[in-house]
Amino acid sequence: MPVYHAPLKEMQFVLHQTLNIGQHYAELGYQDATPDLVDAVLEEAGKFTESVIAPLNRVGDEQGCRFDNGEVTTPEGFKAAYQQYIDAGWPTLAQPTQFGGQGLPYSLNLVCAEMQSAANHAFAMYPGLSHGAQATLMAHGDEALQARFMPKLVSGEWTGTMCLTEAHCGSDLGLLRTKATPQEDGSYRLDGSKIFISSGDHDLAENIVHIVIARIEGAPAGTKGISLFLVPKMAVADDGSITGRNGVSCGSIEHKMGIHGNATCVINFDGATGYLLGEPNRGLNAMFTFMNAARVGVAAEGVAAAEASFQGALAYARERLQMRSLSGIKAPDKPADPIIVHPDVRRMLLTQKAIAEGGRALVYEMASWVDISKSSTVSSEARQRAEARLSLLTPIAKAFLTEMGFEATSLGVQVLGGHGYVAEWGMEQLMRDTKISCLYEGTTGIQALDLLARKVLGSRGALLEGYCTELAQWWQAQTLPESLQPLRQQLLAHLQQWGELTQGIAVRAQQNPDEIGAASVDYLMFAGYVVLAHQWLKMAMAADALKERDPDLCQAKQETAYFVFARLLPKAASHAVLAAQSSDSLMRLPESAFGR
Amino acid sequence: MPVYHAPLKEMQFVLHQTLNIGQHYAELGYQDATPDLVDAVLEEAGKFTESVIAPLNRVGDEQGCRFDNGEVTTPEGFKAAYQQYIDAGWPTLAQPTQFGGQGLPYSLNLVCAEMQSAANHAFAMYPGLSHGAQATLMAHGDEALQARFMPKLVSGEWTGTMCLTEAHCGSDLGLLRTKATPQEDGSYRLDGSKIFISSGDHDLAENIVHIVIARIEGAPAGTKGISLFLVPKMAVADDGSITGRNGVSCGSIEHKMGIHGNATCVINFDGATGYLLGEPNRGLNAMFTFMNAARVGVAAEGVAAAEASFQGALAYARERLQMRSLSGIKAPDKPADPIIVHPDVRRMLLTQKAIAEGGRALVYEMASWVDISKSSTVSSEARQRAEARLSLLTPIAKAFLTEMGFEATSLGVQVLGGHGYVAEWGMEQLMRDTKISCLYEGTTGIQALDLLARKVLGSRGALLEGYCTELAQWWQAQTLPESLQPLRQQLLAHLQQWGELTQGIAVRAQQNPDEIGAASVDYLMFAGYVVLAHQWLKMAMAADALKERDPDLCQAKQETAYFVFARLLPKAASHAVLAAQSSDSLMRLPESAFGR
Repeated sequence: MPVYHAPLKEMQFVLHQTLNIGQHYAELGYQDATPDLVDAVLEEAGKFTESVIAPLNRVGDEQGCRFDNGEVTTPEGFKAAYQQYIDAGWPTLAQPTQFGGQGLPYSLNLVCAEMQSAANHAFAMYPGLSHGAQATLMAHGDEALQARFMPKLVSGEWTGTMCLTEAHCGSDLGLLRTKATPQEDGSYRLDGSKIFISSGDHDLAENIVHIVIARIEGAPAGTKGISLFLVPKMAVADDGSITGRNGVSCGSIEHKMGIHGNATCVINFDGATGYLLGEPNRGLNAMFTFMNAARVGVAAEGVAAAEASFQGALAYARERLQMRSLSGIKAPDKPADPIIVHPDVRRMLLTQKAIAEGGRALVYEMASWVDISKSSTVSSEARQRAEARLSLLTPIAKAFLTEMGFEATSLGVQVLGGHGYVAEWGMEQLMRDTKISCLYEGTTGIQALDLLARKVLGSRGALLEGYCTELAQWWQAQTLPESLQPLRQQLLAHLQQWGELTQGIAVRAQQNPDEIGAASVDYLMFAGYVVLAHQWLKMAMAADALKERDPDLCQAKQETAYFVFARLLPKAASHAVLAAQSSDSLMRLPESAFGR
Repeated sequence: MPVYHAPLKEMQFVLHQTLNIGQHYAELGYQDATPDLVDAVLEEAGKFTESVIAPLNRVGDEQGCRFDNGEVTTPEGFKAAYQQYIDAGWPTLAQPTQFGGQGLPYSLNLVCAEMQSAANHAFAMYPGLSHGAQATLMAHGDEALQARFMPKLVSGEWTGTMCLTEAHCGSDLGLLRTKATPQEDGSYRLDGSKIFISSGDHDLAENIVHIVIARIEGAPAGTKGISLFLVPKMAVADDGSITGRNGVSCGSIEHKMGIHGNATCVINFDGATGYLLGEPNRGLNAMFTFMNAARVGVAAEGVAAAEASFQGALAYARERLQMRSLSGIKAPDKPADPIIVHPDVRRMLLTQKAIAEGGRALVYEMASWVDISKSSTVSSEARQRAEARLSLLTPIAKAFLTEMGFEATSLGVQVLGGHGYVAEWGMEQLMRDTKISCLYEGTTGIQALDLLARKVLGSRGALLEGYCTELAQWWQAQTLPESLQPLRQQLLAHLQQWGELTQGIAVRAQQNPDEIGAASVDYLMFAGYVVLAHQWLKMAMAADALKERDPDLCQAKQETAYFVFARLLPKAASHAVLAAQSSDSLMRLPESAFGR
């Protein structure tokens, strides 16, 4: 199976060369987060991930979680590894100092999360969801609740979940039925059943803190009657000590395609005591705060899967000997050439590399905007600008990078041929594990609607225009080596096309709102390719500065950028054609005539 | 999980309306294969598949095959179902009458095989590979060998396999090491080890007949020294009775992504007695005869997977209530609209429908050419024409339809959202099972090289030009309803573009043979979309004749054809752009600079 190596050099290239992360952190007042510290954290995180988390990936898949007598047991080794993870302080890295966190930037933790996800997607979900729950508690909980729950969440002794989905409502949360009844002491009694709760139950921590959406008795129907609650698995006294069971239980776990090491639970609330977060009936808004950051994290999972699969495929392609190169023997001392000499194998490897590295650059930049959005030292203008960009790019990154991450893992299987299909090589597990990222936290279809309907058309084009104009101006102001200038022209043309495409849909949508849904996924994929190309051109430009110091890296970045503009960006054109089609071709067939 | 219903009406539409199969069979001298008999066979096959084979799909996946003490045990119920399959005479349908077969056409059996594969991919592989082994024995074995082995293979009491791959050689069979030593009695002694042998060992049949490629002692190196052998698991006397074990054993079975109900075996030959098929050192040519038919069968697996996934997704989309249609409430009596009202859900369903039905039309037409190629009653000119078309279209159908079949199953998962990821719903199993079809019998990359290098450029364009010219002339001669005429124009333009694209690659390849490998997969995908569109236009035209008799079916075919031309065929354009790129963007990066 592929041995994961944290690609530190690649990560450092993005952080230091393209994002100038040291200056970024200094501007936000993170005094400790010097470039040296960043490198030290990455190195330690890499070691820990490679030696503790990665070795459990296969066993996690094979054994999966067990559900006996209402309790979930994680695969062999997970509990011990998680304890090491706590002992080493990793859960605390970017958490608030007042509750025992190290207070380092969100973006630095994201780099570590990418490593963990690449090494072991199922394992990485435990801290991932816990951080989401903590962010929600920090944003919407009162001080007493924070003081009661945060310290052990920060340390990792407790973990958290997000409980949204019910059997009859996934994308459409307005249909939810879980009921919250106010109690005399100010708490609520929660009754209902949630499904698909990742990390919902397990044996890694002594308590699990569920963030739950529910409807307070008498609340309005639909999404305007949704409130947010904190509901711990074990009841907790004011001083933070556990006093016994709360009315929360795991009803069953799902058998599923992948991420076997993370239990996907039915969680039942039977008269469970919960605590309101934020205002009544404003729960969905509160959820969205959380979901934006969570979706950047899921986008990083796509990057992680592409990276892991690329590493496995590349190692295989260098070793495996099959057939001679069409352009002449390349390894005369061997019975056949290594398959990396074959152009189509290179097409697959370069696609993986382009997704992993370009996706990484995008996700890290977005994480740097999250840093800004959380900062109290920057101007409100800078914060708004970062939030606007995040708002626009989050659905693109989430959907595009998870779809491309999945494609990358599928290509990884193809590089290995039949061996890719065999569990032993680990390539097929990557495919199965990463498919979930195209589904949870909003499917690709939901992201596309969020992008086109809410973000782009919902702002009457202002969000998009702001972004594209700023990007175009910035690119025009850059001094580029001659070889990269045609790429800039190509990118600028695509930015213009993006605007025109949007304009066309907006006009059609005024006549018929179904035009939005009909165009949405192709629109998002178009945007994804453009944004990916933008990141690659940025990297190629940054790499130019390394021409003397690291000519290999410079060459790798620039040649891969050419590949992206020659062989990936052209796919944007067909998505543009499809997004420009009328919805008629989708809507005209009556439901009854679909057949079967 | 999805309940498979054999789509008889769809199958009959292709057979009767677009292929006029009754006349086709009559011309080939299949007196018994009247339209009524065809319908009767389909109906019975449908019943058998739905009631006996489909119910074992899930248990086959869950239990998988077991390997204990050198023996493979198939999942619960497989053995009993296979016995019913034999008792009902299904293995004999299209097999030679002189050995107990029913002598019906190959194409009729393929329709049944599609059903079986859709219902249970792993199960369908047992008879599928057995038919391949029989075809090889009939084509290359002498009469005595046929008399000894065919009767029980035909009846299904014995099954067959194809043993090609070794640990160090998959695509590159010239590297094989399995050794054949001539014995005094004219037989050979086989020594070596094969891997990835599907249906390689099991408990369904009392004997397994392996078709094995090996190198006779002293044979030339490479592909010119490969010979073909028949090597039974159990030794068989001249009268066909089993006399004891032969030196053939199963060394282990693979744990793999899918098709768990079919053991993928390491098969060891230790002094096993084998019999030469055909001439010494001509084994690879003999294999290719077999492989063409096998690849049509694998293409049908892509169709089958798309069909099964479409059925599951469609049923879900009609029932599942989430959100309101953007263009106004469609189900006011319900808490939300069924998701089939949403344009993007329709995009996914129509894509699945287009692949399943268009792919079916392609595969059935190709099967009708196989009928012709096997017929002794047609002119040699007609036979050569059928073989030429098969030769060109086989790699296209195999690679394109398995890639699209996989895409269809992935869309099927997306339609169900998180439920698609859960095993219970059966949608993710379809994805895992069908991924193998993109790999075995030659990966997509190998098919693409076969198409572009061997078939198209290898015939100096003659094969392709013949096909495109014929198609263009045929379409120009058709009388089409006005609404379909723009589609014809679009198709003709693509046929012309296909020629130009080929011309461009041919010119570049003269300078640099790597241009072939660099263009190959995109070239194949371009061809696949064009061929698919051709089939849809044929169906839309044939459906026009049903306007009065079956207006719903007519509408379904024509609207789906518009969808294909509006939303699938445009993807050909981006593949054309990519296939026209220079290989530089793939070849310039030195292997060492790929990183990691």
